[in-house]
Amino acid sequence: MLNFEYSNPTRIVFGRDRISRLDRLIPADARVLVLYGGGSAKKHGTLDRVRQALGDRYVIEFGGIEPNPRYSTLMRAVEAVRREGIDFLLAVGGGSVMDGTKFIGLAAKYEGNGEDILFSRAKPVRLTGALPLGTVVTLPATGSEMNSGGVISHQAGKYVFSHPLVYPQFSILDPTLTFTLPPTQVANGIIDTFIHTVEQYVTVPAEGRFQDRTAEGILRTLIEIGKTTLDNPTDYDARANLMWCATNALNGLIGAGVPQDWSTHMIGHELTAMFGIDHAKTLAIVQPAAWTVRAREKREKLLQYGERVWDLKEGTEDERIAAAIARTRAFFEELGVATRLTAYGVTADRIDDLIQALEAHGMTALGENREITLEVSRKILETAL
Amino acid sequence: MLNFEYSNPTRIVFGRDRISRLDRLIPADARVLVLYGGGSAKKHGTLDRVRQALGDRYVIEFGGIEPNPRYSTLMRAVEAVRREGIDFLLAVGGGSVMDGTKFIGLAAKYEGNGEDILFSRAKPVRLTGALPLGTVVTLPATGSEMNSGGVISHQAGKYVFSHPLVYPQFSILDPTLTFTLPPTQVANGIIDTFIHTVEQYVTVPAEGRFQDRTAEGILRTLIEIGKTTLDNPTDYDARANLMWCATNALNGLIGAGVPQDWSTHMIGHELTAMFGIDHAKTLAIVQPAAWTVRAREKREKLLQYGERVWDLKEGTEDERIAAAIARTRAFFEELGVATRLTAYGVTADRIDDLIQALEAHGMTALGENREITLEVSRKILETAL
Repeated sequence: MLNFEYSNPTRIVFGRDRISRLDRLIPADARVLVLYGGGSAKKHGTLDRVRQALGDRYVIEFGGIEPNPRYSTLMRAVEAVRREGIDFLLAVGGGSVMDGTKFIGLAAKYEGNGEDILFSRAKPVRLTGALPLGTVVTLPATGSEMNSGGVISHQAGKYVFSHPLVYPQFSILDPTLTFTLPPTQVANGIIDTFIHTVEQYVTVPAEGRFQDRTAEGILRTLIEIGKTTLDNPTDYDARANLMWCATNALNGLIGAGVPQDWSTHMIGHELTAMFGIDHAKTLAIVQPAAWTVRAREKREKLLQYGERVWDLKEGTEDERIAAAIARTRAFFEELGVATRLTAYGVTADRIDDLIQALEAHGMTALGENREITLEVSRKILETAL
Repeated sequence: MLNFEYSNPTRIVFGRDRISRLDRLIPADARVLVLYGGGSAKKHGTLDRVRQALGDRYVIEFGGIEPNPRYSTLMRAVEAVRREGIDFLLAVGGGSVMDGTKFIGLAAKYEGNGEDILFSRAKPVRLTGALPLGTVVTLPATGSEMNSGGVISHQAGKYVFSHPLVYPQFSILDPTLTFTLPPTQVANGIIDTFIHTVEQYVTVPAEGRFQDRTAEGILRTLIEIGKTTLDNPTDYDARANLMWCATNALNGLIGAGVPQDWSTHMIGHELTAMFGIDHAKTLAIVQPAAWTVRAREKREKLLQYGERVWDLKEGTEDERIAAAIARTRAFFEELGVATRLTAYGVTADRIDDLIQALEAHGMTALGENREITLEVSRKILETAL
């Protein structure tokens, strides 16, 4: 096991009818900015219930945070925070709203240009404060409700940021709030959770037995409840299990003390930026191809994954690895998500553009062993056609 | 899944050579009381390394916290805290030292009689402060390093307390610090972790799939590494896996949103109080008997446990349950821990005394469904002979 530090202060408030707890979770004299996305939180009554729970606190709303939240949108929210003297942020939505809210929390307390925060991986910036924030989760997928990171879109690309100051103080996870989600978003959430898990698990052996078993538990649960929760959106237990798995897939637990990959995410980000493909769908495209190309480097963990997640115990090692990849692809396809670039209209002639984008963003040595050069990324994309 | 709240603020600092981090984790101007047990932390040099890491802070030591830490001992430490103006507590040891330190942290800030805190389950008491505390773990077993509870011995019995104020701010988990443990303590730690897990898992089905899989992961890991870490105490990875499992077995994670039992602990506490049997050994005695007596009520989860933890898939349901219990008992015995009361010199004629003690402590309706009356406890003890 590798040395690690792990802590996560977010309070999870999980279950039915928990929105009323907001009154206890947010200071009585707080001036609250409620942030949301495209309007489904308003349409389905979630925002009304939130407003009601907040009682007579000073509350303003900021809607319209888009999928892959844009820097320019978020900076308008920062202006509203400053203008209105806001001192608490409440995200009501999925990963984009939560990620955006974290960024707003940091940018509102930062005196320099907000872009500095986006570019801080390349050029570190000192952040000394953030507005406190909480979330009401309406889409189980990104795990943003219990971590300190986010992904923001900017004209220059997609940027990952993280800072301990923006762990949500609390996150309300009420599975019933997700019953009205469109099936495609549910399928995306299942795949997002699945790939978050394998990015921290299908790497190289590191004697992280608790971490491996817990990752395998998430994957098996997703396989067990994936189709069920898609077909029966009001099946409480199926949705509750998806929701709790999504949170635990990216709250630091399964990745503590073990190698991490994340190359599928990095390559996927370019597909979203260039072609507007949903984040989760880019992962479903890249992951099977990446495992096919890197079967040698990931051999031991792919065999373990095949055996413990898919019960693949017969055949040669190569056969079992191929079967594990095929089963994974079939699982995604059964959820209605295509796993080939060409299914999204992306053809071989665009691979050069994608490689150039990866290079421009410094993605020239990806994966748990930094062995994914641009040449390997090219092979992965060709395999994904 | 049941509704739940979950949060855990403790920072885990895991791995080799982490004691030096104390200098960063404890305020530079802190007045520190270092608490330890019977002297092995001193003998093996751990205390010296701690003192060195604390640099020129004002530090005093309080040793001699015994297994099943006694109220009277801890109150002497409270006096030292007040006399010396201590503002940070550092526990260096196992569960007894950590539990005792938490109690000291609460009692030092409580103006009434310290016994009020012990008896607070029966008669609630308002606690408004606690000294901050950290731990350096030398014995993987109780999970006290990442939870807010403890068990204290008093002439009137063993008392469980918990309060959010006494989550450790940090816990240093360095597996190498455990290499010098006597084998019996390691075996106890494995069994303690095992039973913590099954108390939250072998109950009744509740659609907590992530929780179940994670619990099963801990159990399988203990089975995989138990004998190894006992036989090869300096096998870093085996000890690291034991240590991280012990923490995760009782930090709230696997018990969130699912029923919990804890009757084996409650019955076991009486065996410790009356006969001085090690806590973990009492659990190894009671658990197989409790499952035998309650096989009907726990049927579904015992079958799941048999299949997923012990790969028992053949035979009738009754046969599989019997085999699961037998395998569990054999596992404990292989670790050198006897699983029968009579092996500890406790005979049938003492069962009346034990039942009277349970009654005196209000333990008349135990288990996940409160169905373990004194009559059922009697059957369990008879079965454990």
